[in-house]
Parts: sequence; structure tokens; C-alpha cells
Amino acid sequence: MFAHTPNPPYYAVIFTSILSDDNQGYAETADLMVKLARQQPGFLGMESAREEVGITVSYWRTLDAIKAWKQQSDHAIAQQKGRESWYQDFSVRISKVEHEYRLNK
Amino acid sequence: MFAHTPNPPYYAVIFTSILSDDNQGYAETADLMVKLARQQPGFLGMESAREEVGITVSYWRTLDAIKAWKQQSDHAIAQQKGRESWYQDFSVRISKVEHEYRLNK
Repeated sequence: MFAHTPNPPYYAVIFTSILSDDNQGYAETADLMVKLARQQPGFLGMESAREEVGITVSYWRTLDAIKAWKQQSDHAIAQQKGRESWYQDFSVRISKVEHEYRLNK
Repeated sequence: MFAHTPNPPYYAVIFTSILSDDNQGYAETADLMVKLARQQPGFLGMESAREEVGITVSYWRTLDAIKAWKQQSDHAIAQQKGRESWYQDFSVRISKVEHEYRLNK
């Protein structure tokens, strides 16, 4: 549940979302996407929490690794369902992590 | 609850935490820190959710704005309490947002 990332620089995809009322198939697909993301080259970790808003931050070695995951075929289908049905709104922010500090390391 | 940020580039502080059992004064201080952050120069928005792990992402215009907030006196005291008492573990990642896309904009 806590991502253990290497020394910066690396990349973070900050995915913020608000769910719609149509959640059919959402939970199963979300779980599957986590499993598939972990198998992608360049994947470094992921952290996720949802209250009113859901926040998932995934960490990646390069921008190319992020692009490859965006285009992965099962993920592309899930994105389409997300846009059409599951999400009332979402934002994806691609960012470059420049510094990190931990309480315990 | 959804941050409406300007066009990139800007900065994101990804704060991930696991709370300890000692939560005395935590909620009040967390609320106050949100209020104070909103008054800081260069503050652009904030998103927050907690389940097993808590994720707060705050958005800032510049690295200097982030530095000024880190050094703000009430915030510095809160950070000290956080390190000593409230958090079992945390990570702070400073990142530069390079791209953003929204479902509804």
C-alpha cells in the first residue's frame, strides 16, 4: 500500500476521479488494472485511496513506460469504459518527481 | 474536492502517510493546515483521500512557493508533531506536472 520508489528522478501519474452512479464492472476492472500495471516494464509502485474523491498515484521509470501502459490493450478498453460510464469526472496529471523524503527509510 | 489547476507546468507535492495510533489533535491541525495552505502565495489547489493509506496532493505555482509553505511557522510545528506522533510513516514527493488532461473541461 506504500510505494517504495528508487531515488528520483522518476515519474508519477496522479489520477484523480469522481465515480458516477454506474459502477457495473468497475471494481473487477480496477483490480485487474492494478495487476496488469504491476507487470508493465518500468512500473515502480502505486498508492490509492478513495473518499469523496479517488486518488491513485502510480510511479514509473520513464515517460515511455507511462505511454506504453496508456496504450496497453486491456487498459485502453478500461479507459474507454471509464470515460463512457464509471467516472463523473477525472484528471490525469503526468509529473516528474524531483525530490523525495521519507519519515522511515 | 477536485483541484482546478492552470495549464502545466506547475508543481505537485504528493504526501502519502500512514497514521499511528496517537491521533490527539491530528484532525484539528489537519483542517487548520488546509486553511493556511489556501492562504499561501502560489497555492493552486489540493486533493485528499484516506483509506489504509492517506494521500494528499497539493498543487503549487513554483518550487519557491512549496519551500515557503514548508517553512511557514504553524506548518513547521505541525510537521514536527507529525514526525513525532501522528504518522507511523510518510513520504513527501516533490514533482513537476508536465501534462494534464481532464474528462470534463
